[in-house]
Amino acid sequence: MTPPPGPPPSMALRTALLFLRFFTIAALFASIIVLTTNSAYLEIASVELKLHFKDIYAYRYMLATIVMGMAYTLLQIIFTLYYISTGNRIITGDGSFTFDFFGDKIVSYLLATGAAAGFGATKDMKSVFQGVLGDTDKFFNKGYASASLLLIAFVCTAMLSVFSSYALPKRI
Amino acid sequence: MTPPPGPPPSMALRTALLFLRFFTIAALFASIIVLTTNSAYLEIASVELKLHFKDIYAYRYMLATIVMGMAYTLLQIIFTLYYISTGNRIITGDGSFTFDFFGDKIVSYLLATGAAAGFGATKDMKSVFQGVLGDTDKFFNKGYASASLLLIAFVCTAMLSVFSSYALPKRI
Repeated sequence: MTPPPGPPPSMALRTALLFLRFFTIAALFASIIVLTTNSAYLEIASVELKLHFKDIYAYRYMLATIVMGMAYTLLQIIFTLYYISTGNRIITGDGSFTFDFFGDKIVSYLLATGAAAGFGATKDMKSVFQGVLGDTDKFFNKGYASASLLLIAFVCTAMLSVFSSYALPKRI
Repeated sequence: MTPPPGPPPSMALRTALLFLRFFTIAALFASIIVLTTNSAYLEIASVELKLHFKDIYAYRYMLATIVMGMAYTLLQIIFTLYYISTGNRIITGDGSFTFDFFGDKIVSYLLATGAAAGFGATKDMKSVFQGVLGDTDKFFNKGYASASLLLIAFVCTAMLSVFSSYALPKRI
């Protein structure tokens, strides 16, 4: 957790961080698939209604944070691969460390809030819908699954954020 | 946002950071008051039920994050006042910067997830309870108010977290 701040990060550390980025994007991809394919049939007063993930506002927010997380992580992967293959940075000078620091920080907050909103809404909505006929239980369990995958992506990004904070001295 | 990392922080900066801590604890205090005094009467099939904040799981999680946030912020205020008055740190050496860095980081994530869970549950539960007789609208609006105050406390802690990250080089 505490790499020495003096010398530039070794290739092993850089590969480990790249692996974390790949793992993040894989978790986000799985989360978005589970979230957006989620739907259920409700039966209220003999009328069948379709409940879609878009009907839960918290799930819409989750989708927004996942998309932003994927875009940012993809950008970081491209930057890292470019740096590994050419030895040059796309963002030169101090900007590179500042971008990593604020990017990881802001995106990790976004993913954390997305997962929390998903868990918060799922827990309480699940108990409210318990009496309703239909497969709402399965619907909300998928909501939990998607939020859990988002939580994993958050944990990875939070770890990356610790590294990008410890890398800040290097810009001096 | 970017204090020079070389010299120790000036008294002006230290006072500004202390002010942010006081502001954080004030927002958390207001948030806990609004949250825990929140209740509403529901009328379901001529039976009057009392809805308490504890009945919403997301609000319980909010309470937990607020309490942890208050305990941590109070500790930081005590540490800072002790340092200003005596010139010595309670946690000596590198530990002080590491404690600030990880403390601010973890607590800001906690507060962010607390606010997000509160907003997520309130938004969706409010629309579900709209048809129910009673003053649930007022109940959920108070939920929003409490989550908003928690969000303010999160923003303050996130700013403090940026400063404690930039302070990391000083420990070298």
